[in-house]
Amino acid sequence: MTTVGVDIGGTKIAAGVVSEEGKLLESTQWPTDPTSPEVIEDGIVSAVQNFARTYDIEAVGVAACGFVGADRSTVRFAGNVAWRDHPLGQILSERLSLPVVVENDANAAGWAEFQFGAGREVSDMVMMTIGTGLGGAIIVNGKLVRGAFGGAGEIGHMVAVPFGHYCGCGHEGCLEMYASGTALTRAARSREISEPTYMGGVRTYAGDRSKLRGQDVTQAASDGDEAGLELVSHLGYWVGRGAASLAAVLDPELIVIGGGVSRAGDVLLEPARRSFKENLFAMENRPLAPLVISTFENDGGMIGAGDLARRD
Amino acid sequence: MTTVGVDIGGTKIAAGVVSEEGKLLESTQWPTDPTSPEVIEDGIVSAVQNFARTYDIEAVGVAACGFVGADRSTVRFAGNVAWRDHPLGQILSERLSLPVVVENDANAAGWAEFQFGAGREVSDMVMMTIGTGLGGAIIVNGKLVRGAFGGAGEIGHMVAVPFGHYCGCGHEGCLEMYASGTALTRAARSREISEPTYMGGVRTYAGDRSKLRGQDVTQAASDGDEAGLELVSHLGYWVGRGAASLAAVLDPELIVIGGGVSRAGDVLLEPARRSFKENLFAMENRPLAPLVISTFENDGGMIGAGDLARRD
Amino acid sequence: MTTVGVDIGGTKIAAGVVSEEGKLLESTQWPTDPTSPEVIEDGIVSAVQNFARTYDIEAVGVAACGFVGADRSTVRFAGNVAWRDHPLGQILSERLSLPVVVENDANAAGWAEFQFGAGREVSDMVMMTIGTGLGGAIIVNGKLVRGAFGGAGEIGHMVAVPFGHYCGCGHEGCLEMYASGTALTRAARSREISEPTYMGGVRTYAGDRSKLRGQDVTQAASDGDEAGLELVSHLGYWVGRGAASLAAVLDPELIVIGGGVSRAGDVLLEPARRSFKENLFAMENRPLAPLVISTFENDGGMIGAGDLARRD
Amino acid sequence: MTTVGVDIGGTKIAAGVVSEEGKLLESTQWPTDPTSPEVIEDGIVSAVQNFARTYDIEAVGVAACGFVGADRSTVRFAGNVAWRDHPLGQILSERLSLPVVVENDANAAGWAEFQFGAGREVSDMVMMTIGTGLGGAIIVNGKLVRGAFGGAGEIGHMVAVPFGHYCGCGHEGCLEMYASGTALTRAARSREISEPTYMGGVRTYAGDRSKLRGQDVTQAASDGDEAGLELVSHLGYWVGRGAASLAAVLDPELIVIGGGVSRAGDVLLEPARRSFKENLFAMENRPLAPLVISTFENDGGMIGAGDLARRD
Repeated sequence: MTTVGVDIGGTKIAAGVVSEEGKLLESTQWPTDPTSPEVIEDGIVSAVQNFARTYDIEAVGVAACGFVGADRSTVRFAGNVAWRDHPLGQILSERLSLPVVVENDANAAGWAEFQFGAGREVSDMVMMTIGTGLGGAIIVNGKLVRGAFGGAGEIGHMVAVPFGHYCGCGHEGCLEMYASGTALTRAARSREISEPTYMGGVRTYAGDRSKLRGQDVTQAASDGDEAGLELVSHLGYWVGRGAASLAAVLDPELIVIGGGVSRAGDVLLEPARRSFKENLFAMENRPLAPLVISTFENDGGMIGAGDLARRD
Repeated sequence: MTTVGVDIGGTKIAAGVVSEEGKLLESTQWPTDPTSPEVIEDGIVSAVQNFARTYDIEAVGVAACGFVGADRSTVRFAGNVAWRDHPLGQILSERLSLPVVVENDANAAGWAEFQFGAGREVSDMVMMTIGTGLGGAIIVNGKLVRGAFGGAGEIGHMVAVPFGHYCGCGHEGCLEMYASGTALTRAARSREISEPTYMGGVRTYAGDRSKLRGQDVTQAASDGDEAGLELVSHLGYWVGRGAASLAAVLDPELIVIGGGVSRAGDVLLEPARRSFKENLFAMENRPLAPLVISTFENDGGMIGAGDLARRD
Repeated sequence: MTTVGVDIGGTKIAAGVVSEEGKLLESTQWPTDPTSPEVIEDGIVSAVQNFARTYDIEAVGVAACGFVGADRSTVRFAGNVAWRDHPLGQILSERLSLPVVVENDANAAGWAEFQFGAGREVSDMVMMTIGTGLGGAIIVNGKLVRGAFGGAGEIGHMVAVPFGHYCGCGHEGCLEMYASGTALTRAARSREISEPTYMGGVRTYAGDRSKLRGQDVTQAASDGDEAGLELVSHLGYWVGRGAASLAAVLDPELIVIGGGVSRAGDVLLEPARRSFKENLFAMENRPLAPLVISTFENDGGMIGAGDLARRD
Repeated sequence: MTTVGVDIGGTKIAAGVVSEEGKLLESTQWPTDPTSPEVIEDGIVSAVQNFARTYDIEAVGVAACGFVGADRSTVRFAGNVAWRDHPLGQILSERLSLPVVVENDANAAGWAEFQFGAGREVSDMVMMTIGTGLGGAIIVNGKLVRGAFGGAGEIGHMVAVPFGHYCGCGHEGCLEMYASGTALTRAARSREISEPTYMGGVRTYAGDRSKLRGQDVTQAASDGDEAGLELVSHLGYWVGRGAASLAAVLDPELIVIGGGVSRAGDVLLEPARRSFKENLFAMENRPLAPLVISTFENDGGMIGAGDLARRD
């Protein structure tokens, strides 16, 4: 028997049929209107009904960018979509007559890694999803840690720097402001102001200085540009620091780095590993959890949500 | 049936008989020589044998100040006692012919709160033990989080301040350096240098400025001294900040504040609560976990260790 | 004999006739087009020529928001006006057939305080001008410190916080990002996100949350609103810290606080004084420089520039 | 005519005859008892009287490690010597029947560089003396900046890091705690705890880990050891940051780096220059002040004090 996994992002929705082995048997995606919960639900219902013509769908798992309640149905709020205490799971379940569970998207992606990807051999794992923001998933003793109210795993909002960069959440110095694609973009633009000559190489990837983005930096770094390497290395420094704080608290066997920015690969991962070691409590007196890149690039949310739908 | 709980500190050992309801039926304590593992073991063996004359002892739980391995027997290392990869549990078990489990002392104290104390109604809890250092215990879904290698809960070594105070662990800016009795003592001594006039009230509690300690500050604060209140409030600020980072990661239902410094009560707790709210991610969109003082003052380690000895 | 003092801001220009005693005998102001150096110069020439019909004008002093070269004529660059290595003084001098000196506007305002205002009794003084940004002026032994290349006094760009807020200058953690009107506005907007309930009082002054600005906060603070007081007090904390760093380096007799934000008065100044004392090196072993509000509100730039025009 | 320059350190006193051209014609040094002002004065008097047999001594300049008052005679206090509001200059002047001026030792060393050393071609200069602590000297327009109360130039006590390392002065995060020999020693010892394997190379220079000091690190760095280079480079980072803050405030033509730690040379200076550029306000729009090593190694205090004695 199979499930459907759905991944709702700020601009598009992806849905796919997930096998018990974590394979994506078929998938589809479409742009969405983040301002209308109904349009989102209509799209999901129609996609699931479509899959149901071919597959025996047992349940639906939805990965949502937002704060999902302990009931695994209600989205308390989301930065990019117009949900506010919205009973997303219940609505979909009623319309589809199927069990539906909703999970935070970073949690879903982490679960996919844990079950079928980089973490499939371990029982305690942390995943850091470095995309526009910084999401997290925590697996303790084979179980996803959801927290008392469903809000666990918000590692991007650990405080990393007193009086540090303003975060969209209204606080200063959240880790997300140092270890994310947004951080990389902002660091690059800032450096472009203070040292434009040094940034010449990176700038060529953006074409126009006002369009400079994180991916220009990672690309420049991959091509060996000095400024690009320095900026990505600095991002890695913060990823490693964050990983070290998480390891102090959770002592995982493995730390999986995912999200779009993780595709930079070793230019990011090497400095992250070094910083992780440098900042890890009791480093020489403990087994060192490896930092590895995630197995799934974009499908983790769907696969994880689909698999979680099958569990209580 | 009952167990014995043992709590090994840097200067003394306490042992007691723990009932299934978490009651301490009888207890004893003695000074110890932290440089000799054997002397420590001799004392424990003799105390347990003594109790065994009166009680039916099922197992022994040992709370140790240190990094305890995943086998719940080996102490990897400890700051105050001369253990290095020392099979403490196995040695005691062989000598006593009883099952023995070893657990980090902050974990044991946290478990006592969870089972029998401030956290007995919840299933997800974090405990912050503010003594000389800052220890932690994490309960997720009714289980103590030990981590893959036994080292979870070292919340004092989350990085709180880039380039911050040197910690005994060899890093800069560990939370322990801001939210512990040591932190309070050092802040007071530092302020004594820069603003001795302002510190006059606090100083009277210490008698001699070179003897100024954290407890002088908490006492001055309790008596309404301005400098004392400011220093304790600053400590509370960091406790709250740490609690907010932990809540972002773990989303507990309750945060229990224990350890000697927690006896300062509201002069510490009020600023901690305020700072917790100020620094908590999505504060107005989530249930707010209460910060409460622990139920057990000094016996938590024994009681928790004794109870853990009964579980796998 | 008299001079004309001109103060070029981002949106308007003010010009006035300055007596030898620092009195403004007559003044005028007009909006300006910051994108056109010529329009700016035309306006100044015509204003001076107008004054010259009534007064015997000896020289012209121009206060400019920007980095003025050591020649006291060239504006290297400015944030708000389209100057780049622009020989402003020389152009005006040729068109007016009068001696013209150009000075950074914060330096000019500081000089006015030193000669005719809050600092007229001292010989070593620092002025902190807290407006949109944070400017500074340094007087050592009765002379304005211009630096080897004309760029001294940029106190807003001392680094206050490692990894701190991005500054428009391309660096992280400049003092200006913590001790300025911009800082107050951003802190208020951030707090509005994280603690909207707490910010209710401040918000009523802004009407609309998206319009929340620094002046709403200072006004709320003046009316006793708790959140407003906290935010202004935090600004004062940074003003005091900055003042303490400046005092460590320069040991002035007096620190004058000016600029629009300084009009908040004691709600800002009291916390600034307290923080200054708390952060001042060797505080109890040195005379404490008073922190006082500037004498001139808006005319300091004109008066100072006019007076500087008369000196070499 | 000649003067005598005296340099009083915490463990020894050096005195020498200084020509008008800044040459040291003859010099002597002896150990001292920092607890006895009288013993110090006796030694100085006898040394000067000795020199007076051979040379025509016009005046005496004394460089003292401490806070010297505006009268250039009184030492308000000193960290290493038992002075408290001690009229050192007046006492020596009376005993010697010669004019005596007292100056802070870092100021004296800076003056020597300005008059006869690395800064002799410029008129605006900052010197950073990196020894056990971090001292400074500021020259503006050819004059030594003493401040209103004699305390200017204490650049080591600019605040560099909020909540940073405790300084002996009673504050947190003073620049001295990051850019000094003490900082290097402490950073090395801390790293020795957290990453002993990595520190193996550095440790061989110290022999014993408990004896690890800053000079072991600089030597290891000079020999290419990776950990040594990293630690010295980190020190350079802070020197450059401090220099950038000073340049924002003072805009000097030259920054001279002196003191024992500066003897590390390029392994320190290159990272300092890089960090200076990275942190300098408006770096690409201003002439870049060079960072250079001081001309005088140990004699700067004597030479500078001797020369200052000749001026009012």
